[in-house]
Parts: sequence; structure tokens; C-alpha cells
Amino acid sequence: MESAIDTHLQCPRTLSRRVPDDYRPPFPMWVARAGSGLQQVVMAYLGVQYGQDAQRPAAVAALRHIAGTFEGADGPVHHDLTDHVDDSGHHNLMAVGYWSDPAAFCRWLRSDEVKGWWDADERLADGLGYFREVVTPRADQFETLYAFQDDLPGVGSVMGEISGEISEHGYWGSMRDRIPQSQTDWLQADGNLTIVSGDPGNGGRVVVRGHDNIALIRSGQDWRAAGEEERSLYLDELLPPLEEGMDFLRDNGETLGCYSNRFVRSIDLDGNELDESYNIGHWRSLEHLERWAESHPTHLRIFVTFFRVVTGLEKLRLYHEVSVSDGREQIFEYVNCHPRTGMMRDARPPAGA
Amino acid sequence: MESAIDTHLQCPRTLSRRVPDDYRPPFPMWVARAGSGLQQVVMAYLGVQYGQDAQRPAAVAALRHIAGTFEGADGPVHHDLTDHVDDSGHHNLMAVGYWSDPAAFCRWLRSDEVKGWWDADERLADGLGYFREVVTPRADQFETLYAFQDDLPGVGSVMGEISGEISEHGYWGSMRDRIPQSQTDWLQADGNLTIVSGDPGNGGRVVVRGHDNIALIRSGQDWRAAGEEERSLYLDELLPPLEEGMDFLRDNGETLGCYSNRFVRSIDLDGNELDESYNIGHWRSLEHLERWAESHPTHLRIFVTFFRVVTGLEKLRLYHEVSVSDGREQIFEYVNCHPRTGMMRDARPPAGA
Repeated sequence: MESAIDTHLQCPRTLSRRVPDDYRPPFPMWVARAGSGLQQVVMAYLGVQYGQDAQRPAAVAALRHIAGTFEGADGPVHHDLTDHVDDSGHHNLMAVGYWSDPAAFCRWLRSDEVKGWWDADERLADGLGYFREVVTPRADQFETLYAFQDDLPGVGSVMGEISGEISEHGYWGSMRDRIPQSQTDWLQADGNLTIVSGDPGNGGRVVVRGHDNIALIRSGQDWRAAGEEERSLYLDELLPPLEEGMDFLRDNGETLGCYSNRFVRSIDLDGNELDESYNIGHWRSLEHLERWAESHPTHLRIFVTFFRVVTGLEKLRLYHEVSVSDGREQIFEYVNCHPRTGMMRDARPPAGA
Repeated sequence: MESAIDTHLQCPRTLSRRVPDDYRPPFPMWVARAGSGLQQVVMAYLGVQYGQDAQRPAAVAALRHIAGTFEGADGPVHHDLTDHVDDSGHHNLMAVGYWSDPAAFCRWLRSDEVKGWWDADERLADGLGYFREVVTPRADQFETLYAFQDDLPGVGSVMGEISGEISEHGYWGSMRDRIPQSQTDWLQADGNLTIVSGDPGNGGRVVVRGHDNIALIRSGQDWRAAGEEERSLYLDELLPPLEEGMDFLRDNGETLGCYSNRFVRSIDLDGNELDESYNIGHWRSLEHLERWAESHPTHLRIFVTFFRVVTGLEKLRLYHEVSVSDGREQIFEYVNCHPRTGMMRDARPPAGA
């Protein structure tokens, strides 16, 4: 039994863990490990939005373009592709890239291939919407949790190794306890989402400024290799409350501190659905996410079912990753997206503007 | 908004609260207050057990005798009476007394009327079972929580006053955060239940020694004054998962660290049922209670329903009180009770015996 917080990230606590040192979880779970060489990661959600089915070929082509820019030396270590319909009925395709070197990400972002394409007038004129939402958590600002030990998805894919059985799971508050920075910091929100350029109601280019400690959760399900029984477990037992909960957050997030919630389906480069899905939630703070997760009937139903089945899982892969990040290292930019897209929905003009 | 921990019980924390200072609960709740004059309370559960319906008149008479001993100057400040059937099909009547002065309790316990009666050979010969389970938490070792503000039941009745709206509720871990001692202490179990005299399998007199930080929860429902709608809310929505959860704990507590669980009905001196009930649970530690409460489907169902209805409650009164106590100040004594009664079920002879 080891701590979810890797040894090189442990420090003298000023805030205590929620559970005593001799706490033992009721079943095994694992976290991703990286050496001390991994200082900071980049999580980039790069989207293409369209409102009419006829636009799908163009949107898929745009997604393939984005994925193409990943091929160079400064591209992400790992990426995956997703599709989802948002609360306004728009389709959104995303390329989700993970970098282990923020400098490489900067070079990628500033390359002609990326910057030139993003800044081009064609982006305003081709009838599609585009967005990029990027957070850059340091190694002490995120955590992972897997019910399996190999072929890690998401940020785990750039970390490379898996822990032994970890102690901090199976209780409310364990997510916070797994984030190294929580040893000394409450991870509280600082400021509000602010529109610093453009007007969401008018389309065009909009830039939103984030704030410290926006929490980002990716919570995934992979039933590609699942047998009939586990497919049924996922599709018939886990998925219904999951969809209900995620739809609730998508449609009612504003009052809860959930800035954005997307339940996405993994796709291939041709836009075909894979047997993988995940939820991407942006929250005002980890505390807001905690309060919802601990009290909402749909999430408690998911939690109870997970507790019941977790020790029997074979090929059904369930995991999550949660980060907080500094406001100055977040990017939230939109081109011709509808005004409820991403961080725009809850962003306001700066005070005095 | 004030802390559940009264000002005179606050101290510099070595263990942090689970939530940040600016946490605000989603609905109001209150705790009982006593001045700094209240140093320690006595919670005495005094039982009469019988197996045959024909013994009920004798058992009720014994209960009335116990209640009669409360009348003197050294009797409890407050008491109530209960009835329940245990997992072995035995009826148990209890007089539950609260003292605000442990010295008065000691005088009461040592009085001829009480000691003489308890020690008498008739107790072994009259065909009834008897038990007394007493804990004596100091003021920093217990907490209360009420969804109402007047006529407080249980330990609140000896504390006398009600707080303003308190901060520490509405999240898992708030129970611990309301106990003053948790500011500096994990409240961990120390030792095991030990049979120090007698043999539960043989009946007769048995004495069980407790250990530090046994957690005792009394969790109550009072629908005496409820209108039709709130009676239905309690009886049709809250009671079914409550009964299911409490039966589960009664029958499966041993593996969970729940030493004893009794869902009792309040009665009058003639044994007639009142529209009040409460659960009395003894747990190996607060941590064991926390883990069950946060993860068991029945308790989560109760919790979700409570969250949904709490702001609309008018006459339906819901509350709880939770204490930990020092092992040396606990009394667990049994006379001719079946061997699964109270602490006897999980108690073992001392090592080496």
C-alpha cells in the first residue's frame, strides 16, 4: 500500500488528509506515475463545432487537419479524438492532446502550421466553429485513478508507469487527497471567468480569461474489450445514471459552479464511434465538484454501482483524472462558436467594462 | 453563520477541517449549546430484555422501576423510554437517561435503590434480562445536529440552548468536524471489546470492557406533530430505506465495525408506542461509521431524500447526536441477556485467558 502522492511530491502537510494513516481502502485502485522529470503537463482540448449535418465532412476534415499538426516533433505525446452533441444541439469534434513538455507545446502553438491556421481569416469565414481550451497543470496539481494497470489513457499515457495499490481512494475527499498541492493549499477559486476579447453573442473571435484553480475532470469508460456481461454492466447499469447525471450537469451547471460538461464519445479519424467515452467537466473549483459528486442522486447511484462491481471488473476499464491549474496558464479561445460553448456561457465582461 | 464547535471549545487545530473557511452549507441546520459549565455528560441506556410475550407485563414493570429511580435528586436531567425487537427476536425495553453531572450519576448508580436492585439475586432469578450501557463523553467529545430549533431531544435536552445556523454540515466529514476533539485528534479506536467477567454463552452476569473512542450515534425521527403530508413523507419515503439500512447494520454489523445497532420506538410508561423513533448505533470508531454512512446504498438513499425535503420540513423533526468516549468511562454490563445482546456479540475473552 502506497500513497497516491509520489514520494518526490510529498511535503510536510499544513492541511491534513481526510483519513488517518492506517486507513485501508475496500478494494484496489492505482494511479499513474512519472519520474521527477515530469514537471508540468499540457492538456489541450481542440474543438470543431458545427450546427448542420451537412457540415460534418468539413468538420471531420478540420479535425484531421488538427490531428495532422500533432505529427511533428513538437506535437503531443498522446492524443485521442471525440464527438459530442452539446446543449444547443451543435456537434463538437475534439482532438485532445497531452504534452509532457510545455515548451514543446508552446513551439507547436506558435508554429506557422498551427498559429497561421488559427489566425487565418478563413477560420471566420468557413462556416465552422473552433475552440481551444488548454490547461497546464504542474505535477503537483493533478491526480489520476484507474481500476486497471496497463495501457493508461489520458494523462496517464504521458506519465508512463503505474503505481502499486494506493491508499487514498474509496472515500469522499480522496480525490483532493490525491492531488499533491492539497497537502498545503485549499485549491480555492480566485476570480471569475472574464471575457477579455470579443462578444460571444456576436460570434467571431472570443477570448475568455480563466482563474486559478479551475478544476478539470476527465472521467472515462472503455468497453472495447469487454465481454457480453461487462458490456451489459456498462450499458445497462452504469450508463443510464451516468447519462442522467452528465445531462443534468450540462444543462444545470451554472448554478452549481460547473462551467462546462461534455459527455463525449471517442471516434477514429473518419469520425466513426469507438467503444470508449468520457466526460470532460470544467468546474469553478475542486470544492464545487466535490459537493456535487457527494450529494447528487445520479452520481451517488453511479458510485454505489461502481463499489458493487469494481472488484469483478475484467475488461471494462474505468478511470478518471482531475487537475487544477493556474489561471495564467489557461487558454480559452473561441471562433464562431455559439455563445453557450465552453467557458463562454459563464464568462462575463470585466468589471467596469 | 457560526461554527458547530462552541467558542469555549475551539482550540488551535493540528488537523484541518474538511472544508475551507468560506464553505457555506446548502440549507440551515443547528446544534445544541451549553455554557462552559457543562464539562461532561452521561448517556445511560438501561435495558430490560424478554423472550416471551407473556413476560411483557413484568418487563414493563421493571422499566417503570428503573424510571422510578430517576425521580430522586441524583436522577438524570432528562430521559425517554423505548422498545425494540432485536436480531434474536427478543424484546428490549430501555430507559435512556442523560445526566449533565457525572458525580450525580455516580451517586445515583451507587444508591441502594439502584445498586441494591442491580446486584440482587432476584435479577438472576426473575426470568428477565437486564443490561446497562453507559458512556460519559466530555463536552469536547460529542456533537449534535438538528433540523429544528426548539424542544431538543436526547443530549440537547440537557444542554438547554440552540445555536445559530452552523457551518459544518451538508458534506461528508461534517460529523467529525463538529466534534471539538477532532480539531487535534483522529478519534481512533484503542483496543477491542473484552469480556472481563462472566460468559455470554452461559447467561448470568457479564461485564464487557470497552475501549477508547467507541462512537455512539443516536439518530432520531419525531412525527408526533406532523401533518398528513409529512407523516407520509416519513412513513413512505424516509422510513423504508431507513429500516432497510438499520436492519442491515443490525444483522451485518460485525464485519463493518458496528458493534450494535438498535432501531427503537419511543414508548410511554405503559409501553404504548409514540410517534417517535431513533436508531442507537455503537461503532468501533467514528471512522467505521463514516465509511458505512458514505457508501451504503440505503444510507445514501436516506441522505438524498433528506437533502431533497429538508428545506420544506415543518413538524417532522429529524436530528442526531454522536459521541466518542474514553474506554475507562464506559459501562457495559449484562444480566441473563442472550449472547448477541449489545457489546457482548463482538466481545472476546482477554488475550491469554
